[in-house]
Amino acid sequence: MTSIAHNHAEAAYPRTRARLDEILRIPSISTVPSHADDVRRAAAWIVDWMLEMGMTHAQTHESAGRLPLVYGEWLGAGPDAPTVLIYTHYDVQPAEKSDGWATEPFIPTEIDGKLYARGAVDSKCHVVIQLAAVEAMLKAGNPPINIKVLCEGEEESGSEHIYEFVANNADLLKADVCVISDGSLPNEHQPVLDYGLRGIISFEIHVRGPKRDLHSGHYGGSVHNPIQALAEIISQLHAPDGSVSVPGFYEQVEPLSDEERTVLLPMRAPFDEEWRDVTGAPAPWGEADYSLHERIAVRPTLELNGIYGGYAGEGVKTVLPSSAVAKISCRLVPYQTPDHLWACIQSHITAITPPSVLVDVIRVEMGAEAFIIDRESAAMKAVTTAYERGWGVKPLLSREGGSIPVTAEFNKYLNAQMVLMPFGYKNGGAHSINENCDLGMVRKGIDTMLHFYTVLAEQA
Amino acid sequence: MTSIAHNHAEAAYPRTRARLDEILRIPSISTVPSHADDVRRAAAWIVDWMLEMGMTHAQTHESAGRLPLVYGEWLGAGPDAPTVLIYTHYDVQPAEKSDGWATEPFIPTEIDGKLYARGAVDSKCHVVIQLAAVEAMLKAGNPPINIKVLCEGEEESGSEHIYEFVANNADLLKADVCVISDGSLPNEHQPVLDYGLRGIISFEIHVRGPKRDLHSGHYGGSVHNPIQALAEIISQLHAPDGSVSVPGFYEQVEPLSDEERTVLLPMRAPFDEEWRDVTGAPAPWGEADYSLHERIAVRPTLELNGIYGGYAGEGVKTVLPSSAVAKISCRLVPYQTPDHLWACIQSHITAITPPSVLVDVIRVEMGAEAFIIDRESAAMKAVTTAYERGWGVKPLLSREGGSIPVTAEFNKYLNAQMVLMPFGYKNGGAHSINENCDLGMVRKGIDTMLHFYTVLAEQA
Repeated sequence: MTSIAHNHAEAAYPRTRARLDEILRIPSISTVPSHADDVRRAAAWIVDWMLEMGMTHAQTHESAGRLPLVYGEWLGAGPDAPTVLIYTHYDVQPAEKSDGWATEPFIPTEIDGKLYARGAVDSKCHVVIQLAAVEAMLKAGNPPINIKVLCEGEEESGSEHIYEFVANNADLLKADVCVISDGSLPNEHQPVLDYGLRGIISFEIHVRGPKRDLHSGHYGGSVHNPIQALAEIISQLHAPDGSVSVPGFYEQVEPLSDEERTVLLPMRAPFDEEWRDVTGAPAPWGEADYSLHERIAVRPTLELNGIYGGYAGEGVKTVLPSSAVAKISCRLVPYQTPDHLWACIQSHITAITPPSVLVDVIRVEMGAEAFIIDRESAAMKAVTTAYERGWGVKPLLSREGGSIPVTAEFNKYLNAQMVLMPFGYKNGGAHSINENCDLGMVRKGIDTMLHFYTVLAEQA
Repeated sequence: MTSIAHNHAEAAYPRTRARLDEILRIPSISTVPSHADDVRRAAAWIVDWMLEMGMTHAQTHESAGRLPLVYGEWLGAGPDAPTVLIYTHYDVQPAEKSDGWATEPFIPTEIDGKLYARGAVDSKCHVVIQLAAVEAMLKAGNPPINIKVLCEGEEESGSEHIYEFVANNADLLKADVCVISDGSLPNEHQPVLDYGLRGIISFEIHVRGPKRDLHSGHYGGSVHNPIQALAEIISQLHAPDGSVSVPGFYEQVEPLSDEERTVLLPMRAPFDEEWRDVTGAPAPWGEADYSLHERIAVRPTLELNGIYGGYAGEGVKTVLPSSAVAKISCRLVPYQTPDHLWACIQSHITAITPPSVLVDVIRVEMGAEAFIIDRESAAMKAVTTAYERGWGVKPLLSREGGSIPVTAEFNKYLNAQMVLMPFGYKNGGAHSINENCDLGMVRKGIDTMLHFYTVLAEQA
């Protein structure tokens, strides 16, 4: 199959490139309810392409109050051939040009081989790579494997509803191998394959003090300022050594074994370099007993995503504000459960809240557990070979600091070998301004998927 | 003079009440440059009224890049009669209904004897009270004193330009007594006369970390989060006992004498009650060695006016932000200088800044010193008598926690006895939502000013 399918993918590339533009123009922001119709528009766009290429059962699945999932399949290889389930997502984070973008976030703009748009790298390039690979394989004829594709529309807003869908549709989604296609390689040249993901939990701290904003002259010095009280609480969430100081936070964390530290060792130097390039931060920070790479790969975190309170406008307003809010998320590592962390966080904040303010801690997302893959599985070996052929370089092994909340759910309900196949890159600005994907990586991604299907068929 | 002038004020009240509506409809927000024309409109409105009642030299004074001062006078009592200079301001803080107002902030709305509008209590009620008293005195004929009225348009935005005007116009402004008419009585019933004001300095802390917003999964745990770093800095600005922990902060502060503590003693219980009513905070906070009233009257503060950084919108955005900002102001007590405090703040923040972030501390306003009046001066005694007659209750003595930055400048350049004559009240919501003035206090205020002029003339 390989060479013919690769030729079909190559011939179809101009159309594939145009499709990337099309889907990036749809502001499918799942975290902002007013964009629900845009999310639905993107879902319909995917269904159309699936039907056009000859996939079956292509349709959206939507329950009341939820954004649609898209599912389509091609099962023509027959019951004895391996079945692969592909998962990716088509929803995106919010973005406005005024955030500091150089281009309009929903008008895709190609500059020097990179395509700039919200969702370019997270994760619409994966939608297009995966469907383009299936399309090439179908055009080549006689695919050696069966394919199922599931695209989510709520990945950026907590993935809460896909859990139920997966639980209720285990037969529909049944597969030998499940490919999670999201996330990033460190750069365009050296593939790094992740065998683990961090989980996530998010919450808000609301501090309330006086019943309304006060004049800072009339009452300042006699009222606990909610911004100050919030800052004092936040300052008690980390120890000076960079570790999280919430009691119980590390209770469920397995120590990093010497064997795994050795597996991850080749990642240290490249991550140090990536860290300097991408972050531009004045100096590293965090737990000194761990390399920078280990801090994001194998250690849990507690991160401030936002803070607000009082006057944030131009000039001076001498107000003593009535409230202040912090938005926080934690990244979890294997064996930590969201419910345990949530209980630890609630108890700690309650314990450190002074009597001079009222504090509410609100869980915003139920959260997702971290996930780890058997590095020695057949599917993981097929992934390694596919990237080696697609990139011409032997991949390194790593663990990913980001979260793909559905991974644990797929693993729980589907008896499939799980693998991660990302085609984004770290400089892609996911969740930030000037998000972009590398168009060379899009082409390599399509080729890599075709190699993966060939190796899987050979293994069978 | 008294009874005739009082009768004139009473007869003119419906027109005075209408004038209050007129000036409150003008959004003369001096802290927002786009409202400069509204500030000028309010200035012209004052000039018109001054001319209408027969004051002379009534005009605006404006230099390039500055908002206008309004000055007018009536010197018909002759060189041997006492001359009184009245100072107040006609500019206001920002306000939008969406901040939580029950009514439109620039559409004055009367409810149960209170008039709701931005600037109602701070300080347009004073503009109207002062001009209505002068008008009544002029209508009564043969006023026993000379009057000068100066209204500022930049009080809410730092009062920087009036300094130069006062310095350059000491002859024009020359007076025996200078009345600062701004600020608040605790309530409608019990006048409290302030013999001191706190000063002010304002600044911002800008924390910068990574060069752009990062994905909290990709780099979280290896980069010092700017919101967290800012919270850690803020938490080191106060000690657990509520005192400011900036080294040198209290160096210039005189200890509270037993004699003054006794003078202020009657304020304790009423302020405790006011504090409970107005703040509604869960519990008092601050320096335990001082009563709640002393904390705001005789102690300096460092107050958080605003904070922002990262994502403050709806839902979740798992960003590790590139920066965070806090807006802070300090209230100063007598003998503290803004420059000394600024040096202390800069050194302290530099000393506690970790190497993992960059911090800029930016002075937003040059600031103003605190101010204290001789409680035994003749003018202070005239003020006491005037309020006793106007209110029918003996006033208490106190010191004010707010700041009127020009006071120190008037004292420096004009060889006049300074007094404070406020007619606002603490429940007036100055600098907050639902700002309002009490219309009964407006009428008593006009009467009190007429009593004051009578007593001054009798003293002469």
